[in-house]
Amino acid sequence: MPQQPATLDRLFQALADPTRRAVVERLGQGPAATSELARPFAMALPSFLQHLDVLERAGLVSSAKAGRVRTFQLTPRPLEVVEDWMTTQRRLWERRLDQFDEYVHTLKETE
Amino acid sequence: MPQQPATLDRLFQALADPTRRAVVERLGQGPAATSELARPFAMALPSFLQHLDVLERAGLVSSAKAGRVRTFQLTPRPLEVVEDWMTTQRRLWERRLDQFDEYVHTLKETE
Repeated sequence: MPQQPATLDRLFQALADPTRRAVVERLGQGPAATSELARPFAMALPSFLQHLDVLERAGLVSSAKAGRVRTFQLTPRPLEVVEDWMTTQRRLWERRLDQFDEYVHTLKETE
Repeated sequence: MPQQPATLDRLFQALADPTRRAVVERLGQGPAATSELARPFAMALPSFLQHLDVLERAGLVSSAKAGRVRTFQLTPRPLEVVEDWMTTQRRLWERRLDQFDEYVHTLKETE
């Protein structure tokens, strides 16, 4: 049932950075090589590679090397894990609001 | 259209901790005082208060003090912001898979 807290920690941590979110957004459109992923960012390559490493360790992306080119692709399952957690929280919250509505309604009827 | 990156940074960062996620889960069921929120955690109060502070600065919770008791409640909008980002990513990804399906289908028909 609940995800390992450490997994969610790593996932949220990986997504708490604009460069890493931009890479996830780009890979949502299809696989890309390191150089293509790095291009939009005014950042030294080693720093950019660290971001890719954080994403890969969180399980959000995977990579494969062919010759001198490493290609990255999105792993959708971890994104679903985060989304599931968010959705569960929203449902809990909405249920509570519904119960509150009912309560107010009951109060009005009793008056 | 897109959220301020700094806002999403703070939100994901705030959710990247099991104690803070547990507080969000608890507050989904209704407001609670500091002491009630702290009870399940084997943690010194100052450390716990820091977690509440991170959640409040990210905008995920708000608090009000009555006498000596501070009560916290969930602010659902920021959770929706995170959920929206997740949903957008999933849609992009699914659209890409659909396009890929179509492409494979076309290849088969051409054969």
